[in-house]
Amino acid sequence: MQFIIQRDLLIESIQHVMKAISARVTIPILTGIKIEATAEGIKLTGSDSDISIESFIPKEEEGIENVEISKNGSIVVQAKYFPDIIRKLPLKTVEISTDDHFQVTIKSGGAEFHLNGQDAVEYPQLPIFKPENSFELKNDLLKNLIKQTVFAVSTVETRPILTGVNMKVEDHFLDFVATDSHRLASRKIPLDQANEKVNFSNVIIPGKSLTELNKILDDNEETITISVTENQILFQTKNLYFLSRLLDGNYPETARLIPEQSKTIVYAKTKELLQAIDRASLLAKENRNNVVKLQTKGNNEIEISSNTPEVGQVTEDVKTESIEGEELKISFSAKYMIDALKTIEEDRVKIEFTGAMRPFIMRPMDNEFILQLILPVRTY
Amino acid sequence: MQFIIQRDLLIESIQHVMKAISARVTIPILTGIKIEATAEGIKLTGSDSDISIESFIPKEEEGIENVEISKNGSIVVQAKYFPDIIRKLPLKTVEISTDDHFQVTIKSGGAEFHLNGQDAVEYPQLPIFKPENSFELKNDLLKNLIKQTVFAVSTVETRPILTGVNMKVEDHFLDFVATDSHRLASRKIPLDQANEKVNFSNVIIPGKSLTELNKILDDNEETITISVTENQILFQTKNLYFLSRLLDGNYPETARLIPEQSKTIVYAKTKELLQAIDRASLLAKENRNNVVKLQTKGNNEIEISSNTPEVGQVTEDVKTESIEGEELKISFSAKYMIDALKTIEEDRVKIEFTGAMRPFIMRPMDNEFILQLILPVRTY
Repeated sequence: MQFIIQRDLLIESIQHVMKAISARVTIPILTGIKIEATAEGIKLTGSDSDISIESFIPKEEEGIENVEISKNGSIVVQAKYFPDIIRKLPLKTVEISTDDHFQVTIKSGGAEFHLNGQDAVEYPQLPIFKPENSFELKNDLLKNLIKQTVFAVSTVETRPILTGVNMKVEDHFLDFVATDSHRLASRKIPLDQANEKVNFSNVIIPGKSLTELNKILDDNEETITISVTENQILFQTKNLYFLSRLLDGNYPETARLIPEQSKTIVYAKTKELLQAIDRASLLAKENRNNVVKLQTKGNNEIEISSNTPEVGQVTEDVKTESIEGEELKISFSAKYMIDALKTIEEDRVKIEFTGAMRPFIMRPMDNEFILQLILPVRTY
Repeated sequence: MQFIIQRDLLIESIQHVMKAISARVTIPILTGIKIEATAEGIKLTGSDSDISIESFIPKEEEGIENVEISKNGSIVVQAKYFPDIIRKLPLKTVEISTDDHFQVTIKSGGAEFHLNGQDAVEYPQLPIFKPENSFELKNDLLKNLIKQTVFAVSTVETRPILTGVNMKVEDHFLDFVATDSHRLASRKIPLDQANEKVNFSNVIIPGKSLTELNKILDDNEETITISVTENQILFQTKNLYFLSRLLDGNYPETARLIPEQSKTIVYAKTKELLQAIDRASLLAKENRNNVVKLQTKGNNEIEISSNTPEVGQVTEDVKTESIEGEELKISFSAKYMIDALKTIEEDRVKIEFTGAMRPFIMRPMDNEFILQLILPVRTY
């Protein structure tokens, strides 16, 4: 293998595949990056068995030559050293070549590195992927779906299924749902007509996979193709191939958790409420679950408060747009509330309560497609 | 105590005094910030016994009112909560007041915090300071002196005296020296005539104190007054008072460590050499002491190399301006060399060697006032 490549393109590809590489893997060769040079360009692969990422650098793009390949081939290089070496090289291009003993030579300007590589034949083959259901989305929409739900997955392994996000396509709607059983986040979007035949409900994507995918995807309107099999999901853009295993099991039915009627409705400014709760949480950190209280008051105001006797107390009156229905006193985790309010980009939020002991839900004022649900904490 | 203050000024003062506050102190009240309101303004104090910092916010500055004081007084607030609270308040001003039970009330907009405070009478008095020697410097010069030496102090307590920087004033020169016995950093500057009578040699300032001071000082040409007693040093600007204990003991005589003649002199481009050594160190991290090799070659080139058999090897030929004297092969810690080269702001560096087993020294090409010394590692 021998090629000369634009260093910044190589760095970007390395950063992508590194998202799948972990130092703690059972198959030692997976601590490396696989590099393949073909007539089409350079392909990098990283994998920890759960997630596999391929990043492709085409030989030529829009008439600009990215890579000059003199000899095809492949090698596995140690991921612990390779990225830093490439990043710190002196010139804008780098020449990478291998010999028969799996020695990798990296040349740029006066610098010459010789690294011990491994035979790429030893690198596990990515499973052959036969998609059963496939549909398309815009990058930025997918990123929003992830950001608005993935934070609510469970981080404990007591119910492994809850560490994933449930992805459904039903009645031309794509729906992401995550819950750790104390809160629930859900985001829906209508799918294009082109995706009409797609239909599935029990696809559960590990939260970690979506978090890593979100880091790699650019926030633009390019198209990403999502394909699903029984136990794997593939996200594919022009030069990126992101494969994740799916979680095994049945995702709980979450629709019944969402209260259908409400007793108190508060319409508030999203940012003001978020900041008031953030402030109140400063004194709530010491107490169990980081709990703050919300109480409706006259004059369309709500009082946000928190009290930790050994430190002090805080109260803040927040002006709302309006309050409808019964008076209310309720306590909840400030962290959950902050996480949920952060997903709401709209200026105004509608919060629907069904009493101090029942879950309450939040939505942007004019958007039924986002729903955040939080279980209150019993303190009153 | 009761006053209304510009929040951004208070935040800056808090950041300053927090540099002295540690959660691990033997006197519990030192985990707090002391706040004093007087007719002149607001004074904040933080201390861990070793370092004490006072930051003053004058009532008025250049005709602009910073603070509106309605009632003088003082209190100690918990440093764990107070900074975050002030930082997250909704308005640009904040009102702070106390009652007879040492309760602190913090009001800004609709937010109202009540914090448990402590009686300021319990806060240790800063020692009364009678300077014996006192001189003036510009802020930016002092920051340079610190940055060019403090990295070389010892981080282990086997010889506590080496954890400090030796400050001397002799023959109208101010001199900072630090060494951990493997390397030495020294920076000298001529003092103004105004400081003519100052003379001392065994002042040893804890490295940590200088590091914190450097973080607080603005990089400008304002004047800072430095005053020394037998066991303390005070750095004083218009609104800042930074007091540190000194280390007890005699600093070793370091002048004799510096070789007086050299056998090989290399004149190199500072940045190119630094980057080549940084690259070579990528493969040196696994070996003992992070060692790289330097070897003179023909054609005014030096070869920088490193070899870790299980990973690989790197060699780089670096063009120098010129090489004088004997041929040389020498090994040294890449980290020490990088630290030393980073202190040299000038484009070109002069490196003087006295053989592979002897310490070598580095200076900017046309500046005798900075000296970096490194002991080689025996590998050849």
